[in-house]
Amino acid sequence: MAQKPSIPKGTRDFSPVEMARRNYIFDTIKKNFRLFGYKQIETPSMENLCTLMGKYGEEGDKLLFKIQNSGDFLKSCSDEELADRNLIKLTNKMCEKGLRYDLTVPFARFVVQHRNDLQMPFKRYQIQPVWRADRPQKGRYREFYQCDADVVGSDSLLNEVELLSLIDKTFGELGINIVVKVNNRKILTGIAETIGEADKIVDITVAIDKIDKIGLDNVKAELLEKGLSQQAVAALEPILTLTGSNEEKMQVMKEFLKDSATGQKGIEEMCEVIGGIDTIGHKADMEIDISLARGLNYYTGTILEVKAKDVAIGSITGGGRYDNLTGVFGMPGLSGVGISFGADRIYDVMTQLELFPAELGQTVKVMFVNFGTNEALQSLKYVKALREAGIPAQLYPDNAKMKKQMSTADSDNIPFVAFVGESELGKDAIVLKDMISGEQQTLTLGETIERLS
Amino acid sequence: MAQKPSIPKGTRDFSPVEMARRNYIFDTIKKNFRLFGYKQIETPSMENLCTLMGKYGEEGDKLLFKIQNSGDFLKSCSDEELADRNLIKLTNKMCEKGLRYDLTVPFARFVVQHRNDLQMPFKRYQIQPVWRADRPQKGRYREFYQCDADVVGSDSLLNEVELLSLIDKTFGELGINIVVKVNNRKILTGIAETIGEADKIVDITVAIDKIDKIGLDNVKAELLEKGLSQQAVAALEPILTLTGSNEEKMQVMKEFLKDSATGQKGIEEMCEVIGGIDTIGHKADMEIDISLARGLNYYTGTILEVKAKDVAIGSITGGGRYDNLTGVFGMPGLSGVGISFGADRIYDVMTQLELFPAELGQTVKVMFVNFGTNEALQSLKYVKALREAGIPAQLYPDNAKMKKQMSTADSDNIPFVAFVGESELGKDAIVLKDMISGEQQTLTLGETIERLS
Repeated sequence: MAQKPSIPKGTRDFSPVEMARRNYIFDTIKKNFRLFGYKQIETPSMENLCTLMGKYGEEGDKLLFKIQNSGDFLKSCSDEELADRNLIKLTNKMCEKGLRYDLTVPFARFVVQHRNDLQMPFKRYQIQPVWRADRPQKGRYREFYQCDADVVGSDSLLNEVELLSLIDKTFGELGINIVVKVNNRKILTGIAETIGEADKIVDITVAIDKIDKIGLDNVKAELLEKGLSQQAVAALEPILTLTGSNEEKMQVMKEFLKDSATGQKGIEEMCEVIGGIDTIGHKADMEIDISLARGLNYYTGTILEVKAKDVAIGSITGGGRYDNLTGVFGMPGLSGVGISFGADRIYDVMTQLELFPAELGQTVKVMFVNFGTNEALQSLKYVKALREAGIPAQLYPDNAKMKKQMSTADSDNIPFVAFVGESELGKDAIVLKDMISGEQQTLTLGETIERLS
Repeated sequence: MAQKPSIPKGTRDFSPVEMARRNYIFDTIKKNFRLFGYKQIETPSMENLCTLMGKYGEEGDKLLFKIQNSGDFLKSCSDEELADRNLIKLTNKMCEKGLRYDLTVPFARFVVQHRNDLQMPFKRYQIQPVWRADRPQKGRYREFYQCDADVVGSDSLLNEVELLSLIDKTFGELGINIVVKVNNRKILTGIAETIGEADKIVDITVAIDKIDKIGLDNVKAELLEKGLSQQAVAALEPILTLTGSNEEKMQVMKEFLKDSATGQKGIEEMCEVIGGIDTIGHKADMEIDISLARGLNYYTGTILEVKAKDVAIGSITGGGRYDNLTGVFGMPGLSGVGISFGADRIYDVMTQLELFPAELGQTVKVMFVNFGTNEALQSLKYVKALREAGIPAQLYPDNAKMKKQMSTADSDNIPFVAFVGESELGKDAIVLKDMISGEQQTLTLGETIERLS
């Protein structure tokens, strides 16, 4: 009995049309990464589990896909251990490798491993799939691409300005209206200090990161639950509900944070970043957003996030500065800043707003109809010449009914069909039909190339 | 204690220079796939193990990387089964998914699963990594890319002619001198019939596939060992040592196979394929090679393989026609033909022959030196304008010592360095230095763009 074919849940096949659209996004991002001087690297899909474990929290460890050791994977498991069924312990013995969960930890591992070959500051980009054993749901997949750009080995805030400029240019070219939200972890730290809850900084940032999702009241309730005083939560409220222009927000913040050295430093950094991008110019809205924390605790300075203005969807790009990414691999004190484009969400936004160019569906520019052996071979010579001239072209491989051949041209959105029949044989003559206008002309090969270039 | 970072054996990190070179190969292949009208698809890295198991022989099953089920992976294993340590049985219970081993089986699965959305003939290309738990050795990796093009749903031998043309064009552009070896499975079948050993066709093809590696005597010994008669092996010898031009070989083969209908059909197909590519023209050598079998038993017609002429290395591309690839997934009788470019070996050949263009090492066209905040912001405005004009450009992010900044330009092979110092501030003036000639000029932004375009 034949198997009914299917793929694992949370994974996807991509059809030619989907691939053309995905490539449009990847190519735009990649082109800009290169224009900005980021250099591409790739790392293996599998990392040693010890590289990955403990880097994404306890929850993250569970979401790692683990690869069973080859050969006798029970080799290191005693009978007692098997009988004991301690999953974590047994996994460690049965699996040495896992699929990468993001591109950041492999990048940190790469930098430390190749430190002697890298010139700092090192600007890298990386576009590869990552895997997470998350519960699949709409817009969330178990295999998806990340598109990351990072600079390590430079403290300069001009790197942040450059990343904002990169975001601005890339989304401008994709045609997506965005707002870039900017914050600074030092401001968050300063706020925690100012309200007298410095040791609750993690709870505070995690809670206020949720403000868009669960609302102010629930955030306040959560903070009280975490043990913040009523007084501290009350003091925090005006900060959480801050409004106005960037300048107005900065004014309020400066005053609020005047007794926190860290907070002041955060304000200073923010001014430099926003001032810098304003100086060189941008099309996208740049908005200071004090509620932005992005959950991740490794950010130490600038935090940023991109939202599409015309579609209700989560962030489509995010990033920030971190000061100790490589410490865990034995290389402390390396500062870096980076962003990650969320290609899948960008795809969803562009689909919803119908931003993909229509010609992406096209395969070739011209299809030659197959009238039989001699005509087909003559056509293949023309097809070869067209390809040499850079024009995608093909011959229908079979001498099928005209209707079937034409329906292929139709369903593939091929804009021109060429006929080389018996009467064209032995002459430099191609009958070229424009599939849109229906217009039909007899041309030489040279004229055909010119027409289709 | 910090971990000493490393990657799993048989896997690789790719540095920016390696990536530039790999992209050069992938981009050339991809460009030609598109010019020839192949449409790109992608399939998930993970397939259900039932899709993969049994498709690559018993040895292949062992080389599949299996992914441990998430959550309680021991759920379906009884205590008795665990104690029993039957590895195959336990793997089936602990792992539902595996990493793809090639692109052919996932493609077959794709075609069957999406049969209602695909118009036949369907020409697809696919460039993705595959994984094999092989013993790593020089030139053999556990993660590597395959670059496949296939047409399914067409019996026309013009598809073979097109694939030969694609091979010819692609390697011509990469600058690799090749010989394309062509055979036909039906000829091999005919030979087995003619020497009276039709049931030994698999042994015969496997054995003669090794003729280059182990030599004629060992092949003969192996055939005798497999149970072929002395007489049959003797009858086979002139075929194995066939020499001369394609025409001469065909003459001998025609005579030899005159009593085998299948053999005659093979000759006919071979004539059509070689005749077709000769008619449309080619630069590479096309050589009939009766010893070519490629081990794989799913080929039913044309078999082809590409060798680099100037480097001693295995085949760098291979493929052939198959008639029942999708049968195992419930869709019998679909004929197809395809090829697979071996990107890693092509990389090795090009490295050895120094065929990569020198400019692949470059990151940006121009680097602006950083003289401090004001100069840097002015420089960033110029950098932005250059990028808008499509010129990769960057600013050194830190106000570091000139020597350090210049050494970055040097080690990144950046051909131009730009200076915007105090005396250039507030003017439309950029001091541009050609790093090769050492020549230095003061230009306007417009002139700089023109110079670097």
